[in-house]
Amino acid sequence: MIKVGIVGGTGYTGVELLRLLATHPHAEVTVITSRAEAGKPVSELFPNLRGHTDLTFTAPNVDVLLGCDVIFFATPHGVAQASMQPLIDGGVRVIDLSADFRIRDIDTWEKWYAQEHACKDLVAKAVYGLPEVNREHIKTAQLVACPGCYPTSIQLGFLPLLENNLIDTQSLIANSASGTTGAGKQANVHTLFSEVSDSFKAYGVSGHRHLPEIEQGLGDIIEKSQGQPQPVELTFVPHLLPTIRGIHSTLYAKLKGSVSDIQQLFEARYKDEPFVDVLPANDFPQTRTVKSTNMCRIAVVEPQDRGTVVVMSVIDNLTKGASGQGIQNMNIMFGFDETAGLNAPALLP
Amino acid sequence: MIKVGIVGGTGYTGVELLRLLATHPHAEVTVITSRAEAGKPVSELFPNLRGHTDLTFTAPNVDVLLGCDVIFFATPHGVAQASMQPLIDGGVRVIDLSADFRIRDIDTWEKWYAQEHACKDLVAKAVYGLPEVNREHIKTAQLVACPGCYPTSIQLGFLPLLENNLIDTQSLIANSASGTTGAGKQANVHTLFSEVSDSFKAYGVSGHRHLPEIEQGLGDIIEKSQGQPQPVELTFVPHLLPTIRGIHSTLYAKLKGSVSDIQQLFEARYKDEPFVDVLPANDFPQTRTVKSTNMCRIAVVEPQDRGTVVVMSVIDNLTKGASGQGIQNMNIMFGFDETAGLNAPALLP
Amino acid sequence: MIKVGIVGGTGYTGVELLRLLATHPHAEVTVITSRAEAGKPVSELFPNLRGHTDLTFTAPNVDVLLGCDVIFFATPHGVAQASMQPLIDGGVRVIDLSADFRIRDIDTWEKWYAQEHACKDLVAKAVYGLPEVNREHIKTAQLVACPGCYPTSIQLGFLPLLENNLIDTQSLIANSASGTTGAGKQANVHTLFSEVSDSFKAYGVSGHRHLPEIEQGLGDIIEKSQGQPQPVELTFVPHLLPTIRGIHSTLYAKLKGSVSDIQQLFEARYKDEPFVDVLPANDFPQTRTVKSTNMCRIAVVEPQDRGTVVVMSVIDNLTKGASGQGIQNMNIMFGFDETAGLNAPALLP
Amino acid sequence: MIKVGIVGGTGYTGVELLRLLATHPHAEVTVITSRAEAGKPVSELFPNLRGHTDLTFTAPNVDVLLGCDVIFFATPHGVAQASMQPLIDGGVRVIDLSADFRIRDIDTWEKWYAQEHACKDLVAKAVYGLPEVNREHIKTAQLVACPGCYPTSIQLGFLPLLENNLIDTQSLIANSASGTTGAGKQANVHTLFSEVSDSFKAYGVSGHRHLPEIEQGLGDIIEKSQGQPQPVELTFVPHLLPTIRGIHSTLYAKLKGSVSDIQQLFEARYKDEPFVDVLPANDFPQTRTVKSTNMCRIAVVEPQDRGTVVVMSVIDNLTKGASGQGIQNMNIMFGFDETAGLNAPALLP
Repeated sequence: MIKVGIVGGTGYTGVELLRLLATHPHAEVTVITSRAEAGKPVSELFPNLRGHTDLTFTAPNVDVLLGCDVIFFATPHGVAQASMQPLIDGGVRVIDLSADFRIRDIDTWEKWYAQEHACKDLVAKAVYGLPEVNREHIKTAQLVACPGCYPTSIQLGFLPLLENNLIDTQSLIANSASGTTGAGKQANVHTLFSEVSDSFKAYGVSGHRHLPEIEQGLGDIIEKSQGQPQPVELTFVPHLLPTIRGIHSTLYAKLKGSVSDIQQLFEARYKDEPFVDVLPANDFPQTRTVKSTNMCRIAVVEPQDRGTVVVMSVIDNLTKGASGQGIQNMNIMFGFDETAGLNAPALLP
Repeated sequence: MIKVGIVGGTGYTGVELLRLLATHPHAEVTVITSRAEAGKPVSELFPNLRGHTDLTFTAPNVDVLLGCDVIFFATPHGVAQASMQPLIDGGVRVIDLSADFRIRDIDTWEKWYAQEHACKDLVAKAVYGLPEVNREHIKTAQLVACPGCYPTSIQLGFLPLLENNLIDTQSLIANSASGTTGAGKQANVHTLFSEVSDSFKAYGVSGHRHLPEIEQGLGDIIEKSQGQPQPVELTFVPHLLPTIRGIHSTLYAKLKGSVSDIQQLFEARYKDEPFVDVLPANDFPQTRTVKSTNMCRIAVVEPQDRGTVVVMSVIDNLTKGASGQGIQNMNIMFGFDETAGLNAPALLP
Repeated sequence: MIKVGIVGGTGYTGVELLRLLATHPHAEVTVITSRAEAGKPVSELFPNLRGHTDLTFTAPNVDVLLGCDVIFFATPHGVAQASMQPLIDGGVRVIDLSADFRIRDIDTWEKWYAQEHACKDLVAKAVYGLPEVNREHIKTAQLVACPGCYPTSIQLGFLPLLENNLIDTQSLIANSASGTTGAGKQANVHTLFSEVSDSFKAYGVSGHRHLPEIEQGLGDIIEKSQGQPQPVELTFVPHLLPTIRGIHSTLYAKLKGSVSDIQQLFEARYKDEPFVDVLPANDFPQTRTVKSTNMCRIAVVEPQDRGTVVVMSVIDNLTKGASGQGIQNMNIMFGFDETAGLNAPALLP
Repeated sequence: MIKVGIVGGTGYTGVELLRLLATHPHAEVTVITSRAEAGKPVSELFPNLRGHTDLTFTAPNVDVLLGCDVIFFATPHGVAQASMQPLIDGGVRVIDLSADFRIRDIDTWEKWYAQEHACKDLVAKAVYGLPEVNREHIKTAQLVACPGCYPTSIQLGFLPLLENNLIDTQSLIANSASGTTGAGKQANVHTLFSEVSDSFKAYGVSGHRHLPEIEQGLGDIIEKSQGQPQPVELTFVPHLLPTIRGIHSTLYAKLKGSVSDIQQLFEARYKDEPFVDVLPANDFPQTRTVKSTNMCRIAVVEPQDRGTVVVMSVIDNLTKGASGQGIQNMNIMFGFDETAGLNAPALLP
């Protein structure tokens, strides 16, 4: 059993790590930190864990964390970068679920997050933790930057089209919708039940922080598969769903020419991927079919054969979109079966 | 007070007509038909109407209906066309909330609805009841074909862009989401609470019956404003929301060139429309802000100034998307104040 | 048209007052105060009111408020009592939606609300605004203390049983459930969508602030109808529903003897009440049948004829449970038709 | 690995069995029957199981079923009793999730289910599968009648009070609320999303089929613990929650005398039970804290020390209320660790 530390475990990605690791065959959480809740039993904050853990939140301590085999950061952006250097120096492996090390261009990061990056030297060292693209690099990485929830669903949806150079990369559209856990556990009028329930809206239309991450990722897929870059322009519109979990991305692209069998193309690309499921033709994904799991389910259609391809991609934003993908990365890094601890079927109904 | 008849009033558009007409200053429902529920008091089926109506469902009878000033059809497609001729011959005015008379090309109708049209002669006589486009024709129409819910939200969203010839009409995208009342009140496993709640999905991606209606409507707007037709191709993807009411359409189009002030363009186009509200810049619509009302709220953005315009348009699918728009049409047809009976603010929260 | 002022109109009871008064035939809101939002247009905070009001929030000012005919307090407890004296001295009539003047025994108030009462002298002057019990006193009241939401649903449910001395008043049980708007619009982790949705719980089981108000009200009903007091003991357990609006109270009491026709008793008691609807036998109320309205719907059953009577009572917590009842009181105070502005049927579905 | 057969696996308890057994260490499903869906892959009906099962529905066949070690009936009432005799004769062990063998008095069963019982001889042979009461008998049972969902939550809540003879058993009250999966997966207008969402109601107030099962169970607890029967009268009012899963029972009873420490009594009674969790004092259970698990969480309070005890008990109706408890029974019957396959924490949020 490897020893796992969690920094900042009081939010939704924290409890999701604890839920999933509670049944992991090769890993156990030995320390979980929170300045605000130090001294409080974890099961008091998360009553679903009563009987599953005896852990108590502690104030973060580098020496204690260095006693772990791997550290997860389940913190808002800005925290991991401020704490990372001594952990990396101490040799521990780190999986950061936040946005701190996802974007290679530091100016871009600083523009979108409106603050100076506190750990510029380690940005280049971080491996972007999307296993379907970067599995080999993840194996040996010391620092993995786990992708955002929207970026995961969107990159996996466009991937087979980009790798096969089938679409115009300058007029991509991602129309995405997320459950409210995507907004975190902070007290906020805009995410009250009375404000969100029985309604639907777009937000961040003028520019969302996940946009540069997605465009970087799509560009990487192109460059890696075709040997040279192409300009990528994505119109990304996120929406807020009255659901607890789930992201549904509906992707649109213009096909460069006629394609014989896109369905088969998607199936072939993902047939060996344990966490990507291409649905049969004419079957469309529902967010509930991935609830609580690390699975991404995808469908692809060219409506009316008019040259516009539509991809639908669903994930659980807290699992494949955050903590589950983090554990998938951990499994790869430590040589475990990639699906260890991530085998349970989705909760449906 | 004019006398209103409702044919087929046991579904959600039926009870919405009754709810709205209960406080209308110039109209009263005098007959409501249902073969299945004949003899049952309306308030037994719809307990929200207890104390508001003494009506009882009756079997449909042409002579009785001809005693009304106006008849609403709140029936599934196929019913209105089978009953229409004697009513038109009898001189009564009719507002059909179903799809029977919306599409001018009968072959197209028959292809998408997979049945022969039973009243071809009256199709050309019908006026498409979108007041923001057809107000003058509605005034004198005997037969109004009330637009579908998705088509209303999409046409009102694209309208100012099409009238000003600003967008490429062959690569339009409408990503829409509807509350479950859009699926009607029929017993159906797919719309059970346990199947819809806490989930989200696309459906009808390969082709939805509203597509030809929308493309016809967009084409009409172009031809009317520019004097000649342009080919229109729309990719339309509807989604099912875990909400009772509400449609949110997110529309995407390529701008033909740079546009100085799209916001101002939308505001100018709709400033005199009583039921279209253009939101201030950087404010995006929520379906709950139109719940229970006949209002359409719209926002427009060009994200990152990259040449793709995004329009968001919300309506209540049962009100502006059906029964409310029907009453708006009735008000126009009978010379009432267009907002009569449609003045109450949205129910929020 | 009388002039209405609203103090503290940024919460859910504030926007509900504005929604209902927007169509009131005899009243118009002329001033609405908020220290925090002073200067902001009301429609910016409540987008459902765009097009319905030009009001802007202002800082509270006694002179301005004294220019109104009636003032509503839509504030948390503690605010009305601190501001009341100069308004009463100035002769304006006041309807307080908060708990400040509901409880006659000042020690009891101070114990349950854990603060000193700031306006003890006016407590005795306040009339408890439950029209079904106190209509005559309300007509001439200067200060009306509008009942709480749970207390309204519970008192109306027990009323016919108590007035006829049919039940053991020392073993009453009220099992109530409320939608989340009952918790107000404050930012709070416990009322986030992600915490409330798809769940259900009891709260305040050891003692809820509405308990003394309810017991006082039940005692008043007994004393008024029977000429002498009886001890009242109620076990009151509130629950939190994953709904926006609605209170459902399920009441249990032991019958003192066999009763011939409780159904008829309830129907007779409420036949002239415009806002209490006794359902037919074997029909049970749903909160959605009163959504957006001032109606209370009630059913009564003696299951298995075993001597325990069960009453079910539903209201909309923001309407009959707060702002709607406030307007009903206003109508009574000013001699308007009691239902003025409160006529629209419930929004269903 | 034992071989498991499931009869009638197309409903919600069927898919819940499949979900839980997919990760069970000692059992695998080898046959699942459905007349209506024979020939269809299970994962086509339940897309959450894609990648987890290769099973196909088959028409029921006794010889095939007799090849299993244990058979679950996940059928509506009436089916198991019609098919049971040959299976019992064949020696296979059976766990019936339906109501067919729960009630010992056949007249009572026939009265409440309004049909003749088709297998009277086996009723006495069936063991009532509530492990917290009947664990010893379950070990050797051939036919286990798994308790209903409401009965499980209510019996576990009253159990410590009855075993210690602390309450008046003739004035018990159970106010329960269930998620909509309790109504099954049948197409039905009353359980449509548009009918259930954002609302709450009581149903079956005059008499629900679970009442005789609960009263029998409470009587058994009394007789077993105290050596002689006591009359039991329960007022049971079920309500429909706008949630997918979850039962919350709020129980009320009159204490016979003062009790020193009810909290301690509950904790002591359940300290060795793997699936009953007594919450700390002043903490109340939420249905979401048991979602997807076999856990029952309980709290107990005597509000205001007035002699009425209130117990709150929550379960997941599909897990501890049906399929999970069935697997718990299977584990006991086959000598597995009682928690095998039932270890995962609840899905929260």
